[in-house]
Amino acid sequence: MKKSDVIQLIFHNKLPVEPAREKGLAFAPTNIALCKYWGKRDSELNLPMTGSLSIALPDKGALTSLMLHDNGCDVITLNGKELPGDSAFVLRTTQFLDLFRPERKWFLKIDINMNIPVAAGLASSAAGFASLVSALNDLFGWKLSRRELSILARLGSGSASRSLWTGFVEWHAGVQADGMDCYAEQLKDEWPGLMIGIVSVAEGEKPVSSREAMQRSVDTSTLYTAWPRKVARDLVILRQALHVKNFSLLGGTAESNALNMHATMISSWPPVCYFLPETIAMMHKVWDLRRSGLEIYFTQDAGPNLKLLFLENDKDKIFEHFPQVEMIQLFE
Amino acid sequence: MKKSDVIQLIFHNKLPVEPAREKGLAFAPTNIALCKYWGKRDSELNLPMTGSLSIALPDKGALTSLMLHDNGCDVITLNGKELPGDSAFVLRTTQFLDLFRPERKWFLKIDINMNIPVAAGLASSAAGFASLVSALNDLFGWKLSRRELSILARLGSGSASRSLWTGFVEWHAGVQADGMDCYAEQLKDEWPGLMIGIVSVAEGEKPVSSREAMQRSVDTSTLYTAWPRKVARDLVILRQALHVKNFSLLGGTAESNALNMHATMISSWPPVCYFLPETIAMMHKVWDLRRSGLEIYFTQDAGPNLKLLFLENDKDKIFEHFPQVEMIQLFE
Repeated sequence: MKKSDVIQLIFHNKLPVEPAREKGLAFAPTNIALCKYWGKRDSELNLPMTGSLSIALPDKGALTSLMLHDNGCDVITLNGKELPGDSAFVLRTTQFLDLFRPERKWFLKIDINMNIPVAAGLASSAAGFASLVSALNDLFGWKLSRRELSILARLGSGSASRSLWTGFVEWHAGVQADGMDCYAEQLKDEWPGLMIGIVSVAEGEKPVSSREAMQRSVDTSTLYTAWPRKVARDLVILRQALHVKNFSLLGGTAESNALNMHATMISSWPPVCYFLPETIAMMHKVWDLRRSGLEIYFTQDAGPNLKLLFLENDKDKIFEHFPQVEMIQLFE
Repeated sequence: MKKSDVIQLIFHNKLPVEPAREKGLAFAPTNIALCKYWGKRDSELNLPMTGSLSIALPDKGALTSLMLHDNGCDVITLNGKELPGDSAFVLRTTQFLDLFRPERKWFLKIDINMNIPVAAGLASSAAGFASLVSALNDLFGWKLSRRELSILARLGSGSASRSLWTGFVEWHAGVQADGMDCYAEQLKDEWPGLMIGIVSVAEGEKPVSSREAMQRSVDTSTLYTAWPRKVARDLVILRQALHVKNFSLLGGTAESNALNMHATMISSWPPVCYFLPETIAMMHKVWDLRRSGLEIYFTQDAGPNLKLLFLENDKDKIFEHFPQVEMIQLFE
């Protein structure tokens, strides 16, 4: 099944081509998975092998504004700078827009502002695609539900399906081949005392893209065959931990889930290793602090940086041990 | 089933108590597993979940000499220094000897000389227990087969079952509850050009013993459930690689196997991580060198140090990139 078939399923052959207003505008937060998305059951539609669960960073994300224009091509400005038409970012965005304009009859002036620290391993494509589909929905007056927007955002980037909401969000793996049961939903729980701290240990390009890395885990890691069982278990525990506000359970499960994801990478061939010496040093520091009684956990995505999980009460101690940390409040 | 039952099975209730000669003497090499032993199906008898395959370091190991004496207790000298009677080493050795003297009627003066670099993560207990049972066999004139000695050595330390031979050795997991089909055997293949380089990145006590670490993998890592399938596959490939002398296949399989073992550790809870920043730095160095065309692989045991695998032809280049390496010739 192709992406364009999914578009037909959502719009029932009634793709609006006239804008409902002059400008479409939307913000979408980035998200950090406590239970990771790792491995696809369909790489065309970005259908995942398993469900996943994330927390949005409410103030970090992408604000996208759209206007139709007659240039004959899309013009994209990122953080005030116009991007070259042949850049990977523009090509990927244009290709995505083509899903909604099979005959390429309209073009957009796209202005994206992201306040996500670059190279901190914060999924910028998640916030980017989620804000893009929301802004399209706004511009054309599609009046789609968030669930439908989640499905559309997924076609751009898997984890973008989770960036339509703030708070805790669960993305369902679904079982259908068309992915119409594969969307995210906001969980009811809120947790005002919960915090995330971002510690950058290294900058620079990833050696392997997460798209390629997850495919390699699926294709070559024998241990990966047990990953879906690990996720099924962690999702149950995380939902329960959120419900009863058990921070040790939440933090431990998130950390274990991330380490299991990286375990499926180092067990691939050729091995994929996002650990840098600094990453390992910081892990040992977290474990030492935890042994000394401080409730602190980490999670790690497809990059070398760690995201610390802790409670607001321990804010000062965390800052003392990690002076370079950027702390993020997750709830008002 | 208890260890003492295994002793009965081997000696048929005819445990000799009279020495056949004045002094028992034996050397046993240490060994490095290319396919790791990780996880037990019986922790009393050290029966492993899977088979494993190792290469002996022919000149590195333990030389043990034994004499009966009448002190009423065992006296152990390690590298010329008498060990305190309450040290862990003496207690573990005495406990092992008690298997052969249920009534504690005789005692030994034990002199062990090990030329294994301390804190390099080279299994000293493997060489130690293998040389101890061989020296006992010599002293008491048991005339046991190597296979029987392998079974006895296993009761002291699992990987000691592989230290009765030089060259490539495979340890069979067996299926019997008494472990009488769980012993090692020497493989026919020799590989004169093959070399191992030991690079010490860090010294000091392990944070978690390998005994405890493997048990934690078995008990808490979901990914561990796929480890036996990985090993089954790697054993077939390694045997084939030895047979056809395909070094890339041997090195790649050994490296992948080690990384899979460590993957089952970091996916445990609490996580077990023998990686230090220096370990990861050296891994990236190996991967960079390999990408640049140098055929070099690594393996890692339950410690922070890497053991490099390479061919004699590349000796000079390896020495250039790792000046601190200790190179070990595996065959004459």
